[in-house]
Amino acid sequence: MFISFEGIEGSGKSTCMRLLAEHLERHGYSVLTTREPGGSALGRTLRHMLLDVRTTRLTNRAELFLFLADRAQHVTEVIRPALEEGQVVLCDRYVDSTLVYQGYGRGIDVDMLRQLNAHAATALMPDLTLLLDVPVEEGLARAGQRNQEEGTVISEGRFEAESMVFHGRVREGYLALAEEEPKRIVRIDATQPPEDVLLSCVSVVERWLHSAE
Amino acid sequence: MFISFEGIEGSGKSTCMRLLAEHLERHGYSVLTTREPGGSALGRTLRHMLLDVRTTRLTNRAELFLFLADRAQHVTEVIRPALEEGQVVLCDRYVDSTLVYQGYGRGIDVDMLRQLNAHAATALMPDLTLLLDVPVEEGLARAGQRNQEEGTVISEGRFEAESMVFHGRVREGYLALAEEEPKRIVRIDATQPPEDVLLSCVSVVERWLHSAE
Repeated sequence: MFISFEGIEGSGKSTCMRLLAEHLERHGYSVLTTREPGGSALGRTLRHMLLDVRTTRLTNRAELFLFLADRAQHVTEVIRPALEEGQVVLCDRYVDSTLVYQGYGRGIDVDMLRQLNAHAATALMPDLTLLLDVPVEEGLARAGQRNQEEGTVISEGRFEAESMVFHGRVREGYLALAEEEPKRIVRIDATQPPEDVLLSCVSVVERWLHSAE
Repeated sequence: MFISFEGIEGSGKSTCMRLLAEHLERHGYSVLTTREPGGSALGRTLRHMLLDVRTTRLTNRAELFLFLADRAQHVTEVIRPALEEGQVVLCDRYVDSTLVYQGYGRGIDVDMLRQLNAHAATALMPDLTLLLDVPVEEGLARAGQRNQEEGTVISEGRFEAESMVFHGRVREGYLALAEEEPKRIVRIDATQPPEDVLLSCVSVVERWLHSAE
């Protein structure tokens, strides 16, 4: 089973993914948690280039192709092998991030992005996508607070530094995708406390597991 | 005017490009020489990742997308601005390298590569492509010698380390492209001494300049 986590900055994806991994492990599943960009050795170098606010003048197309390079390596080297071993793979960001950030956010044609995604990911789609949805103001406030606490404001702020309008388009993109693919993409109200977000995710995952049996 | 240089490893592209740049400058042209990968600041980092033999386990698709990221940045940041200023741009490798190395060499679909090239290069094609053609054995022998002299065998040998069969497919790819587009891609016999290769290139360029007037 392959589950991706999506959402704007500060929507709580990483925390929720960690809690869900612990829950699934307690229930006997073998779980791999990973993320994009940065899920492979190559990807860790690319993540630094892509997210560092000091990376200036990166064109939209160059940015897109770096994300796709990260994905291509990640799917082949990490995700597919884990799925073939029967692990549950939880991935923080995947193909939908490209559609909303580079498509809805940067204005690159979304249909073309779908084709590029399919090529980079060798057509591997998640079984389930948990969309952690929060209003933009709330997400960015949380992300800013986290960065201050972790001292990461310099090294990982390139997307967080985008405008409110940009993040608004990203959130709208996510909601539009969830409407298009309601079976795969499930919107979770991420304004709830973390334990309630987790409970919502667990119930979605369990429903999926039962329907797949 | 935008001229790309193509050919297998050791075909003498770099030397020929330098000599042609000097020739054109003596005749009053303002010339920019550049290369792929590595023509932009981002590209220099990517060049290192792509050509270093110590970069192992890079998947074919990740490799492709890194080359496209390099191209996207290069076209927007370097090539187009130079052309808009009226400079003659000479580029060591460009879109055809992707078609022959990733297509003919690695087996990725060539038509799809053309589409990706067009996207990365914002559809900018060279006016003229000089294909420096040498037999594979001769090219690789020259490349090996150059690397020994320059001590670059470790840092830039990832493609040179490919098999003779791979380089044979690359050369065949180049010859096939030259047959498909005889007006743009001109095959130059690069087994000649460097000064004769230069003379051949100069005559092709001057014919193009006259026909363009």
